[in-house]
Amino acid sequence: MKAIYLSLLLAAGLNAYGQKVVDLVDPMIGTVRMGHTFPGACVPHGMVQLSPDTDTIPHDVDGKYQKDVYAYCAGYQYSDSSIVGFSHTHLSGTGHSDLGDILIMPFTGKPVLNPGTAAHPETGYRSPFSHATEKASPGYYEVRLDKFGILAQLTATERVGVHRYTYPAGEKPEILLDLIHGIYNYDGKTLWASLRVENDSLVTGYRITDGWARENYTYFAIAFSSPIRHYGYVEKERPKYNGFWGKFPKTDFPEMAGRKIVAWFDFGQEAPRVLELRVALSAVSTAGAVRNLRAEALGKSFEQIHAEAVQKWEKDLSRIEAQGPKDKLTQLYTSLYHTLIHPTLYMDVDGQYRGIDHNIHKAEGFTNYTVFSVWDTYRALHPLFNLIDRSRSRDFVESMLAHYDQSVHKMLPVWSLMGNEGWCMIGYHAVSVLADALTKGIAINRQRALDAMVHTSNVPYYGDIRDYLRYGYVPVDRSGEGASQTLEYAYDDWAIYHTALLCGNDSLAARYAKRAMNYRNEFDPASQFVGARLADGGWKKPFSRLSTQGQGFTEGNAWNYTFYAPQDVRGLIREMGGDAKFVRRLDSLFTMHLPDAFFAETEDVTRDGILGGYVQGNEPSHHIPYLYMYTSQPWKTQYWLREIMDRMYRDGIGGLCGNDDCGQMSAWYIFTAMGFYPVCPGSDQFVIGAPYFPLLKVYLENGKTITIRADKVSDKMRYVKSLRLNGKPYNKAYLTYNDLRNGAELDFEMSAKPNKHRLFTGADAPYSMSR
Amino acid sequence: MKAIYLSLLLAAGLNAYGQKVVDLVDPMIGTVRMGHTFPGACVPHGMVQLSPDTDTIPHDVDGKYQKDVYAYCAGYQYSDSSIVGFSHTHLSGTGHSDLGDILIMPFTGKPVLNPGTAAHPETGYRSPFSHATEKASPGYYEVRLDKFGILAQLTATERVGVHRYTYPAGEKPEILLDLIHGIYNYDGKTLWASLRVENDSLVTGYRITDGWARENYTYFAIAFSSPIRHYGYVEKERPKYNGFWGKFPKTDFPEMAGRKIVAWFDFGQEAPRVLELRVALSAVSTAGAVRNLRAEALGKSFEQIHAEAVQKWEKDLSRIEAQGPKDKLTQLYTSLYHTLIHPTLYMDVDGQYRGIDHNIHKAEGFTNYTVFSVWDTYRALHPLFNLIDRSRSRDFVESMLAHYDQSVHKMLPVWSLMGNEGWCMIGYHAVSVLADALTKGIAINRQRALDAMVHTSNVPYYGDIRDYLRYGYVPVDRSGEGASQTLEYAYDDWAIYHTALLCGNDSLAARYAKRAMNYRNEFDPASQFVGARLADGGWKKPFSRLSTQGQGFTEGNAWNYTFYAPQDVRGLIREMGGDAKFVRRLDSLFTMHLPDAFFAETEDVTRDGILGGYVQGNEPSHHIPYLYMYTSQPWKTQYWLREIMDRMYRDGIGGLCGNDDCGQMSAWYIFTAMGFYPVCPGSDQFVIGAPYFPLLKVYLENGKTITIRADKVSDKMRYVKSLRLNGKPYNKAYLTYNDLRNGAELDFEMSAKPNKHRLFTGADAPYSMSR
Repeated sequence: MKAIYLSLLLAAGLNAYGQKVVDLVDPMIGTVRMGHTFPGACVPHGMVQLSPDTDTIPHDVDGKYQKDVYAYCAGYQYSDSSIVGFSHTHLSGTGHSDLGDILIMPFTGKPVLNPGTAAHPETGYRSPFSHATEKASPGYYEVRLDKFGILAQLTATERVGVHRYTYPAGEKPEILLDLIHGIYNYDGKTLWASLRVENDSLVTGYRITDGWARENYTYFAIAFSSPIRHYGYVEKERPKYNGFWGKFPKTDFPEMAGRKIVAWFDFGQEAPRVLELRVALSAVSTAGAVRNLRAEALGKSFEQIHAEAVQKWEKDLSRIEAQGPKDKLTQLYTSLYHTLIHPTLYMDVDGQYRGIDHNIHKAEGFTNYTVFSVWDTYRALHPLFNLIDRSRSRDFVESMLAHYDQSVHKMLPVWSLMGNEGWCMIGYHAVSVLADALTKGIAINRQRALDAMVHTSNVPYYGDIRDYLRYGYVPVDRSGEGASQTLEYAYDDWAIYHTALLCGNDSLAARYAKRAMNYRNEFDPASQFVGARLADGGWKKPFSRLSTQGQGFTEGNAWNYTFYAPQDVRGLIREMGGDAKFVRRLDSLFTMHLPDAFFAETEDVTRDGILGGYVQGNEPSHHIPYLYMYTSQPWKTQYWLREIMDRMYRDGIGGLCGNDDCGQMSAWYIFTAMGFYPVCPGSDQFVIGAPYFPLLKVYLENGKTITIRADKVSDKMRYVKSLRLNGKPYNKAYLTYNDLRNGAELDFEMSAKPNKHRLFTGADAPYSMSR
Repeated sequence: MKAIYLSLLLAAGLNAYGQKVVDLVDPMIGTVRMGHTFPGACVPHGMVQLSPDTDTIPHDVDGKYQKDVYAYCAGYQYSDSSIVGFSHTHLSGTGHSDLGDILIMPFTGKPVLNPGTAAHPETGYRSPFSHATEKASPGYYEVRLDKFGILAQLTATERVGVHRYTYPAGEKPEILLDLIHGIYNYDGKTLWASLRVENDSLVTGYRITDGWARENYTYFAIAFSSPIRHYGYVEKERPKYNGFWGKFPKTDFPEMAGRKIVAWFDFGQEAPRVLELRVALSAVSTAGAVRNLRAEALGKSFEQIHAEAVQKWEKDLSRIEAQGPKDKLTQLYTSLYHTLIHPTLYMDVDGQYRGIDHNIHKAEGFTNYTVFSVWDTYRALHPLFNLIDRSRSRDFVESMLAHYDQSVHKMLPVWSLMGNEGWCMIGYHAVSVLADALTKGIAINRQRALDAMVHTSNVPYYGDIRDYLRYGYVPVDRSGEGASQTLEYAYDDWAIYHTALLCGNDSLAARYAKRAMNYRNEFDPASQFVGARLADGGWKKPFSRLSTQGQGFTEGNAWNYTFYAPQDVRGLIREMGGDAKFVRRLDSLFTMHLPDAFFAETEDVTRDGILGGYVQGNEPSHHIPYLYMYTSQPWKTQYWLREIMDRMYRDGIGGLCGNDDCGQMSAWYIFTAMGFYPVCPGSDQFVIGAPYFPLLKVYLENGKTITIRADKVSDKMRYVKSLRLNGKPYNKAYLTYNDLRNGAELDFEMSAKPNKHRLFTGADAPYSMSR
C-alpha cells in the first residue's frame, strides 16, 4: 500500500520530501453536518475566508433558531443544493455562529434582490449547484452556478477576497452585493450599512452588525476589473425619517446607506465575459480597506494571487512531513490545514486594528489576531503553535494581552470575536494559553502576563467567580454549569500558580496552589465521582452522570468531567479510590453502552464521535485517553488512541466527528499522530501516546527537526514496545519541551502486543501537582 | 437717553471701551417660537452646546412630525414648563432639527427611566421649572429643577460640557443618562449606543444616530466629581438575539450597550451634595473624548472653566464696540453672540476628526468645523467672518475644501452636519463662500478652490443641475423649486465666473459669465416678474406671486425672488422695465397688504418678520432693502433699513422675527448696524446703507480699527446726508474691502430728511455684472 502510494506521488512531481502537501488537503472534510468547516478560499490565519454560503438562518427566526442556526455555523452544508452567494468572513468548526459578511453573487438578467429559499431557489438570486462542479483546495474554490451558467472561482490574500466570474457568452455581467445577508442573520442584525461608488471601478462601504459579536464593524473596498455602467439598490427597511436623502434616486447615485441594503452593479453588454472582483476587508475604516486592497491585491492577476496563496499554504503545511497511506495523509494535512485558519488576522496592513474598546489601536511590535475560542483551543491548538509556529503564537498571546489592556473588565479573552468579547463557554482558559507560552519560552513579558492572569481570575461578576471564591466551588443551585466551572477554574488556577512560580512570586503561587485543588470540592466522596455540589455543601439529587443537560455541566457529562483535573492526575486517582479503581473507571468510560436518549440530547457530536461513553466530539474529554499513562496500565492509552484516530477522523466530507472548534479537534489529531500530547498545558510536558505514521517529521522554526519513526506502526502494531530519544533508550511517560525544542530523534519500536513491563513511576511518571 | 445709559455703564465697572460686553448678551433672545436659538452654555464656535431641552418630538411620530419637530429645532421653547434634561449638541436658529445628544438629568430617589410628558411631567424624569430661576449668559446657564429641588449650573469649554448639580440636603445624588433622547427623535433614530464604566469616576460611551445627519457618531467621556457607587440601565428595545450578553446583570456590570439605552448612576448617601460632571465629546472615538476631557477640563474648577468661557466670549464679542441705548446694544451683542455659535468645531484636540467619508482624518494646517448652513449664511455671515474673524474664516473654508475632498460627489457642502452632508435647501452656495474668501484675500489655494467650485456646479444629479444645464433654467414642471434654483444657480455661477477671473482663467470665466445670466431665463417678459418656467418654455398657470407653496419657489415667493440677481442688479432693473418701474416694485414690496392666507401657509417667519410683502424672517430677501442704492431713490434704503432694524429685532425673548439660521439673521443685523452690507458676496463691495448706532468700532485682527460715526442717528435722523471716509468726502454707493481692511474712519452725517441729491451713477454705483 505504502509503496504504491509513494510511487504515485513521485510521478506527480513532488517536493524534496516526496509530497506536494497542499494537494493532500481536502477542504471539503467536515463540511457536512457537525464538522462546521467551510470549503472556501483563504490563506493561513487570514482575515478573509471567502466561501459559499448554502443557506443561513432566515431573517425572522424567533423561537426556532437553535437547530437551523447551528447547522450553518460555517455557512455551508454539503447536503444543500443551492448557493446563496460568496461571503468574506467565516468561522471554522465553531458550535455557535456569526459573520458571513459582505455577500457577493454574480448574476445575469433582471436584478432579483432577495435570496429566495432553499426549497425554491427560483424565487431569489441564489443558484442551484452540483458538487460535481466544485473544486476546493487550500486558497482556492470553484463552482458552477447553474441558474446563470456562471463559473465562480475564488482565491484570497490575507485581507482580500478575489473573485473571478466567467459569464456565459451573450450575457451581461452583473453583481449583487447583499449587505443584509449574514450567518445567524436575525431580523435587525445589521445596524447600519453604507456604500460609496468611488469611481467606475472602486466601491467602498461597510456594515455594523449586532450578532454574537455584539458590535462588529466590517469595512470593505471592492475593485472591479470592468467599469461599472449602472448600479442601484433597494432599502428593504426604511427608517421613519431619513433627512433629505429620500430626494435622491436609488440608481446611479453614488451613496447608498440604510439598515437593509441590497445593491446591484451592471457592467454593460460590452463588458468582457470574465469579471474579477478584489474585495478587501478592514475593521478600521474604508480607508484601511483601500490600503489593504492596494497593498495586497492590485496589480496582480488572479493566477498570481492564487499561486501566492498556494505557496503560503505549502510553507505552513510543510512544517510537518509524514509518510503513510494517502487517506491518512489527507486527514493529517487537512487537520493541519484546519489549525491554520483561526485565530484570524485582525489588523490592517498599516498595523491599525479595532480593539475591544472599539477604539482604533496600532499594534506595536506584534500582529493582532482575533477568534480565540480558548475553551476549545487552550488544550492542544495553542500548545501546537508553541511547538511549530512560535512566532505566530507570540502574536496570538500579545493579541490576548492587548485584549486584556482594552477590556473594561480587565479580563483576558474568553471568546475573542472581531474586536468583541463573545463570552462563549466557561473558564478563564486564556491563563492556560499564557502559561503554556511562558513555559515554552515565548517572548512575552512575564509579569504583565501574570498580572493579567491574576486579574482575570478574580473578576467577581464573571462566571460565578464570586461564588467560586466564596465556596471553593460554584454551587449548581446558583449556576447551571457550576460543576464544570469549578473543575475548569481549578485547572486554570494551577496555570496561574505555575506562572507565579516562574515569576518567583511564591506567596501568589501558594494562593493559587490552594485554588488549583478546588476540583476536589466537586468530588462526592460517597460515589468517588464528580457530582454537582449545592451551596449548602450537599449534592444535587436526582443526578445523572450520563446526561449533559441540567446536571451542572456543560458540553460533557459527569462521567467525562470526572476525569478533568489535568493539573493533578495523581490526586484525581486518589479521589477515585486509587489506581485499580481509576483504571476500571477509564475502561468503563471507553466501553460503556450509551442509551439512545443520550444522543437525542447531545449537541455538537455525532454518534461516530463517541466511543463507549468517551466523547471525542467535544473537548472536555480530549486528554482522557492519555490518563492511562499515569496508571499501572499505560498501554491502554496506545490502544484507545488508535481506536479514536481510526474511527473518529476519516478522509471524506463527513470525516470530522464533531465541531472542529477552530482547530482543536485537528490539533488533537496532529499531536496524537506525533505520539505525544499536552495533557496539562502550561507544564513543559507532553505525555507520550503512540505515533500514527511510520515517519513524521516536524520542521521547527529554528531549523531543527523532530523526527518520529515508528517503522512498523499499523492498526495491529499499535503498541509501543520501546522508545529511543536521540538514540538512547527513553523510559519516561512524557517528553519535555526542552527535549524537542532543538530537534529530536524519536524511535518508537512498535508491537502488536502491549509491553506490560513499560511502566512509569516516580520521575518517569507524568507531572501531577500532588504526587 | 444716551447720557443716562452711559453713566449707568460707568457705575457698573466697565472695560476700556465702556462696556463689559458679555453682560450685554441675552441668550434668551430668540428662544420662543421661531427664533430657534437655545439658552444653554457654550464657547464661541465650540463643539459642545450644553443646553436644556424642554421637549423634543415624541418617539413615535409618523405623519404628524412637522409641526412638533419644527418648534424644537433648538430643543428649547420658552413657553414650556418642564425640562427633560441637559443635552450637549444643539443647532442655533435652524429651520430643521437634529442632535440633542447625550442627555444628562440629575435626580433623587428611585430611578425613573422615561422622560414623561409635558402634560404630565410627574410620569417621568423630567422636572417642572420656573423662568424666575433661570440665568443665561454667554458660557453659563442655571436653573432650578423644581421636582427634585436641584440647582443646575452649566458651563463649557470647546469640547466639554461642565455640569454642577447641587442636591438638597439629605438626598442622595443620582444622574440619569438617556442615550435614546434626541431632537427629532423618531423611533429607531439611535442605531446603537454603548457605555463603559471605566472606573468609579469615568464613564465612556457613544451613540450612532440616523437623523438629519444620516450617520452621526457622538463619542463621549464623563468624569464625575464623586465616585460612582452603583449603576445600571434599561434596554428599551432588545434585539431578537444578543449573543451571550443576556447572561450578565443590568446593574453594576461595566458594559452597557444596545439600541435603546437609559442608564442611571448612584453616588451614595455619603456623597457631597454638589456633584460635578465634565462631559467631553468627540466624533472620533472614546479615546478622543478622553483626550479632549483631559486637555480641557480636568484639574480645573467649575468657576475657572466658567471664567475662561466668559473670557473667550469677551474676546470675540469685543471685536465690535458700540454706543447706544442698552436695549439696542443687547440686540447688537446678542446678534454678535449668535454669529459665534456656528460653524461649530468638529475636531479633537489632537487634530483628528471624522470626515464625510466617515473615515478619520487629521486636519493639517487648519481647524475642522461643521454646521455650514450655506444657503443661509453665504449672504452675510461668511462675509462678516471675512471682515472681522479672518483666521476662523480660513478654517471654515478649509473645512469646506476638506469636505469636498472627502465627498464621493466631489461637491462642496450644501449643509454640512456632523460629518455628513445634510442636503438641506438649494443651490451650491459654498462657491459664494469660497469666492468671497478669495476676493477678501483669505489664504487658501485659489486653483484648488476653483476646481472644487467648478466640479460642484456640474454634478448632474444634484439639484436638477442636469436640467439647468440643458434648459438654462430648471423647469418647474420637473422640479418643485425650479424657479428658485435657477435664480440662485445663476448667482453662484457668477461667483465661479468671478473666481475664474481672479485665477486668470478667461475661458472658464466666459463660460460662467453666460451661466450667471441664466436668471433672465426665469423672467416672464409679459409680466416683467420672475415666473415659474416650464420645460416647453412656457409659464406655469395659474401662478401666484404671493404664495410660497407650489409655485416653483422655496422660502420666498415670486414677489421677493423677483429681486434676486445680486450679481446683476442693473440687468435686473432692465428686466423689470427700468429704474422707475423697479423703484415702484420695491415700494410695493415694502408696503403691500398681505392677506391672512399668506401667513397661514408661511413657515419660519412671524407676522412681525414681514414688512408689507418683504420677508426679513427668511433669507432670499435680505439684500432687497439695499437695492434702492442701485436706483434713483437711494434714500429709501436708509428708510427701510431703519424700519426693519426697529421692528424686526428687539430686546426680549421674542426678539427674533424668524429662525436665526445659524447666525445669518444676526449677521444681517450687524452689517446693517455698521451701515453697509455685502449685497453680492464674492465681490469686494459692501453697499452702503445707514448706520444704526452713533458710534460703532470694529477691531480688526490686524490691529486696525474701523470707526463708524453717526452722531445724531436716531429713528428720526435715519437718513444719510453725507459721508466722509478717512476725513474725505465719499460719494460712492459702496465701500470696498480694501477701503476697510487697514482700518477706516467713516463719518456719516445723518439727517431727518432724505438727501435726494446724493445719487450714485457710473463708477459710484454698486457693482453689477452688466451696467
